[in-house]
Order: sequence, then structure tokens, then C-alpha cells
Amino acid sequence: MSNFGQINPPPRLLMGPGPINADPRVLRAMSAQLIGQYDPAMTSYMNETMALYREVFCTANQWTLLIDGTSRAGIEALLFSALCPGDKVLIPVFGRFGLLLSEIAQRAGAEVHTIEVPWGEVFKPEQIEEALQRVRPKVLAVVQGDTSTTMLQPLEELGALCRKYDALFYTDVTASIGGNFLKTDEWGLDAVSAGLQKCLAGPSGSSPITVSDRYVEVVRRRRHVEAGLVTSAHQAGIEPAIRSNYFDIPMILDYWGEERLNHHTEATSMLYCARECARLLVDEGMDNAIARHQLHGDAMLAGVQGLNLRPFGDLKHKMNNVVGVYIPEAVQGDAVRSSLLNDFGIEIGTSFGPLHGKIWRIGTMGYNARKDAVLTTLAALEQVLRLAGHQCDASGGVAAAMAVYKAAAEA
Amino acid sequence: MSNFGQINPPPRLLMGPGPINADPRVLRAMSAQLIGQYDPAMTSYMNETMALYREVFCTANQWTLLIDGTSRAGIEALLFSALCPGDKVLIPVFGRFGLLLSEIAQRAGAEVHTIEVPWGEVFKPEQIEEALQRVRPKVLAVVQGDTSTTMLQPLEELGALCRKYDALFYTDVTASIGGNFLKTDEWGLDAVSAGLQKCLAGPSGSSPITVSDRYVEVVRRRRHVEAGLVTSAHQAGIEPAIRSNYFDIPMILDYWGEERLNHHTEATSMLYCARECARLLVDEGMDNAIARHQLHGDAMLAGVQGLNLRPFGDLKHKMNNVVGVYIPEAVQGDAVRSSLLNDFGIEIGTSFGPLHGKIWRIGTMGYNARKDAVLTTLAALEQVLRLAGHQCDASGGVAAAMAVYKAAAEA
Repeated sequence: MSNFGQINPPPRLLMGPGPINADPRVLRAMSAQLIGQYDPAMTSYMNETMALYREVFCTANQWTLLIDGTSRAGIEALLFSALCPGDKVLIPVFGRFGLLLSEIAQRAGAEVHTIEVPWGEVFKPEQIEEALQRVRPKVLAVVQGDTSTTMLQPLEELGALCRKYDALFYTDVTASIGGNFLKTDEWGLDAVSAGLQKCLAGPSGSSPITVSDRYVEVVRRRRHVEAGLVTSAHQAGIEPAIRSNYFDIPMILDYWGEERLNHHTEATSMLYCARECARLLVDEGMDNAIARHQLHGDAMLAGVQGLNLRPFGDLKHKMNNVVGVYIPEAVQGDAVRSSLLNDFGIEIGTSFGPLHGKIWRIGTMGYNARKDAVLTTLAALEQVLRLAGHQCDASGGVAAAMAVYKAAAEA
Repeated sequence: MSNFGQINPPPRLLMGPGPINADPRVLRAMSAQLIGQYDPAMTSYMNETMALYREVFCTANQWTLLIDGTSRAGIEALLFSALCPGDKVLIPVFGRFGLLLSEIAQRAGAEVHTIEVPWGEVFKPEQIEEALQRVRPKVLAVVQGDTSTTMLQPLEELGALCRKYDALFYTDVTASIGGNFLKTDEWGLDAVSAGLQKCLAGPSGSSPITVSDRYVEVVRRRRHVEAGLVTSAHQAGIEPAIRSNYFDIPMILDYWGEERLNHHTEATSMLYCARECARLLVDEGMDNAIARHQLHGDAMLAGVQGLNLRPFGDLKHKMNNVVGVYIPEAVQGDAVRSSLLNDFGIEIGTSFGPLHGKIWRIGTMGYNARKDAVLTTLAALEQVLRLAGHQCDASGGVAAAMAVYKAAAEA
């Protein structure tokens, strides 16, 4: 006997930068029984998943599908498939996840060029253009929403710049998608990767991606067909093989495409899950979902300010779904977080790197972009802050958030 | 609106080489609500998962954990972390999954040496020793059970050979674990990777692994700490960085270890799932689970022979959990499989490469290593074969399987 009981997690309200509580409908979708990998029902679900994520990514790209792994699996697949050893990549870094793109590109053997702004700011298009002109990279890789700083990098003008300087345009939208606008085709994006555990209201473990024809043309030059399968009609590529079998995008396309050439064994339960995450968003309407994230994000921002807390970073460029707040000097940050978790069952986030110990991060995303979640968090935070010696008006947080909801209802 | 309904897969009895139907208890474990990545409840579940898989792998290895991806993610992580570019690897190939190891090792930049036996056979230790002596590889990589041929490679004697020739010993047990003996420590294995979708009765999407101290010492020479995290006390490694961030085993150990250095965001639902798969097996008792697979595998083998079908390959080395059968000349293989699926809701497997169109593969594994699943499959197969013009005794399959069950009950 194992001495371990059934899975029975404590009830938590997850108001950090993600993962957050999953939508119960998403969890139920995962409990459906399995079917075979080439069962017509399974291939239909794969095709439906592709169609749903086209709406989520706001794209007509045929190749819109899932990478079986966490969100950094999607990043690695898209960068490794595009970057041959020695290829140049330009990475504007404005937080931890820009550093991650740079780490991954280095592992691909690429020549990595970074530009930086201080954490809490974003880049102006002219800063990126200057670097594109100087570096002439094969790929521009930039995070859209970096939860480490809560900043949302505007991408609207970068697609045209990438065309001008003949670069592929990749972005990681893990933390932003569903809660902030993303227009894959309109903005000229060539490759986009995401995750389920933020505004998509699911668990980590599947990474939706979409790629343009332009991207596919580039990576198919590195095409390879696995030995031991039926002979494919495809010619092998003329460029060096991709430095991964698992993350070989041309192979993964051949698996998701009509040919259905065997690659990995699709993670069926996570596919059910990813399909349901997208179906709920599409049924809500992408614009409605984004407006919901904006409303509850605004309420949380007003609420923390109402608790006499100072928000972090450039608020004009804050993501809708997360806010950073300076830890007041009078209080011990980890003790406040522990009390929130242990006494109230509410989790808020700590921070990485230069912000570690300086700010908390509070999320309002996915299933938890809800009025009751926002108000409950503010009510509990007030109690804990007051006990820790922080000065704030009684009910100052909840009242300020309520005012935002009232104004929105009257608008 | 999406026009797509809820996930509602057709009822199927999956009797192919895997994936198979998941145990309903495993599916229910996945529907538990999420918790934070560093919640004490989450880190406890991670530690319990490690403890449970030590029993499944029959090892005392501290580093026994999950790679977030399908079973080939586990393979790639273990090979990429061990193999620096130019390192020699020896791969005895006896089916498609040996070829896969070779593909993956090539992507790592390794110098790949293979030896081969015809599909349907396994290697003798002296064949492997001869190659170890000749090649002197850094790693010996061999599949334990290759579902493409149904063969189980004996591993008992290879650990001592690997010590003698100073090679790390890696094996992929995805298809065999839980249904066939595996003694990680006793057999001197240094690195083992698995999957959930065969005898572990779960869905694809998480890859349990275990690694010896000897393996860890080798891969930690390539240690690297991600930028943007708190500064680690660890020295960077002295050997080339691993050609993947996602599959960087030293980083993954730092995440699962006491330091809990952030890497990927653990796929919580798949962790719940993997923990439950192991818990059910450990509660049954590993030896009991293997005996169950042997019993139902023997019954299925007798059953197909009773239907006048000829089994494929060297039966002395057949895996307990899958049997290959030659498609009779009189019948059209895909039509039989279609009728089984569409008329009876039962799936059996086709084949890859040189066996494509020549054999079917029928599994008895995990949740479907059950008497009713075996007898129902044989009853339906008899009907379909007879309609297709195959000659066999009425009830010949079910009677032969029944005889195996009767003998076992009386033993």
C-alpha cells in the first residue's frame, strides 16, 4: 500500500500571476474517457481545436495547434525550429520572460542580440527599429505580456518593421492572451505561442501556437521524416536538421495535417482541456473576455490604491490581468502572503530577480476575473495589512473597487 | 459562438498497443482544482509523486520525477542532457522505437552507433558487449519493450556490461513498465523514462523518469542557472550547456529539489494524474500488476491462436501486454479494423514500417488488462474475421482464453 490518499487539494483562491483556478468546465472536460489517436472522433477534435484557436489568436493561419508541454515548450518549439545555429535573433528584454527567450535562443545555438529597458517599462517602436536595422536578425522575438513586471509590450507597429527588415516576428503571449488584445494577422505576427494557465482558465501543460505561411516556408527547409514510418512523399529539407525531435515543427505539422504522420502520442486529456478553454472563450466572445479582464483589472488596481498601496511600473502599459504593488516598508512581504494563504486561503504572487522582495503581484485572470474574487481578495488583504501595521482607510480597497464596478455599470 | 459542443467521445474499448482506456479513478484525479506552484500542498504532491514512482521503477534513486510532455519528451530530456555534441552513443535497434532513440540522439549532435536485429527478435548480451567494446560509447540507449514488434529486450545483464565499459545505461520503458518486470537498481540502470498511456492506465502527456547518482553527476557538469532568478549558490557547469532549456535535467532537478528554483510551471492536472496512476499500481502491488498483465496477455495470445491466427515474432521474448498477429492472406486488414471499430466500438492496432499491412497489434494493458475486455475483443474479432472470409472454429478464441483463465484459477 502507498500510504497516500486521493488527490484532495485545499481550497484556494489563486490571485497571483498564474496559474489561477481552472474553470470547472475545463476540469470536467479532462475527465472524459480516451479514444484512439487516429479515431475519426479524435482527429475531429484535433481539427476543432485548430479552428477554435484560430479565433483565439485572431488569425486565418492553417497551422494553429498544440505543443504537448507547458508554455515554455511552445516557445522552445517555435524558436528552435526557426533558428539554425549561428542565426541572429533580436530580443527586446523588459522582464524575466524576455531573458527566458534569450536563454532558449542560446540553447538553439543562435547569435543572440538583446536590447533592454528597465523593469516596469516597455519599448518604443523606434528603439526596436534601430536594433533591427543594426542587427538584421532572422527573428525578432518579444514577449507580449511579461508577468514579472506586469508590462504589456505594444506589438501593433512591429510587424511592418519586421517585413521592412526581413525578419520573422515571434511573440510569447502566454500571460496576455485572452485578457489583452492580440491580432495575429493584422499585426503581422509569424509565430505566436501561449499557455492555458493564465486568462485561458486552464491548467499548465499544453501550449497553443499559431504560425504563418512565411514561418512554415522557412522551417520546412529543415524538414525531416522519421525512420521507421511509412515513406513520405516529402523531400528532406536542405538546411540543418532542427536541434530537437520533440520540438520539430515541420514534423508536428505533418502529424496535425491531413497526412497524420505519427510523431508523439497526442496528450488526449490535455487536448480535451485546451479545446474546452478555447471553446469557453470563443463562446463568450474574445472582445467580451478582454473587456471582462479590463474591468476586473481596473477594479483591482483601484482597490490596491484604495488600500494605500503604490502600484508598480508604467500604468499606461500595464496588462489588464495583473498588477504589481510595492510592499510597504512597514510590513514583511512573505509574512503577509503567508497569512493570506493560511488564514484566508488566498494566494497572491511574489516576484523574481530585481523585484524580489520589493513587489507583490496580484492577478485577475481567467476564471478569477470576477467581481467576488476581486472584492474578497481586497477584503482579506485589508485585514492582513492592518494586522501587519500598514495604515489604510477602513474598507478603502473594497470601496474603490466597488466604485469602478458602479461606474462601469452606469456607463 | 463556436458551434462546437462539449467533449463527448464515443465509447471505445481500446485494445491496441496504446493509448488504452484510462482508469476512471485517474480521470477523476485530473478534475481536482488547481493550487499554486509553491503551495505546501503542491510541493507535498510533488514529493509524494517522487516516492510513488520510486516504487514503480523499483529504485531508491532520489531523482525520480516527471517531465512535462509525452513519453518522447522524457527520452529527449534524458538523452539531450547526457549527450554533448560528438559524444558516442550505442543504440541496439530492434524496432521503431530504437530508431526513435537514434533520431533523438542525432538531434543532440551525438555520434550515433547502432546495431540491429530483424524486427521480431531481441539482442543477446554478447552482441551488445561486442558493440560496447568496439564503440566505447558514453551512453548505451536501449528500449525495453518496443510495441512496434511486441518484443521485450532482456536488460538484466546489461548493467554490469555498462559498468565494465564505463557507459551510462539508459532505457525507455514507456510500453513495458507496470506490465513487465523492471528492476532499475538491481539491473544497474542509470536513466529510465516512461509514459502513462500503456500499463499505467493514464493518458499520454507526462513522462515519469528516474536517474541514478552516476547520471546526475555527469549531467551536472553542464549545469546552468537561468538569468532573472534569484542568484543560486551553484557553480555553473564546466561542460557545454545542454541543447535545450525545456529538457535541461539539472535545471529540472533544481525545480523538484528543495531549492525549488523556478523552471517551467508544473502541469498540475497531469501531475495529479501521474500521481494517481502510480498510486493505483503501488496499492495493487507491482508484482501483482505484472502478474495480471501476464495472465491477460497469455489469455489473449491463446485466444488469437484459437481463432486460427498466427502470432508474430519470438514468443519467448514477447511483452506481456501486447501481441502481434499476422493478418490472414484472405482478409483485408484495414477493413477488419474498421468493422471492429465502427460496428463493435473496439480498437486494435495497425503497424509501422516493415510490418505495415502485415500484422495487427492487440494490447491487454493497464485498465484493459481485464478478463471481460479480453473475451469481448475475441468474441467480436471472431465475428468480423468470419464475415471477412477467415476460417476458424466457432468460439475458438473465447474457449482458448477461457482455458487459460481456468488453468490459472486452478493453479
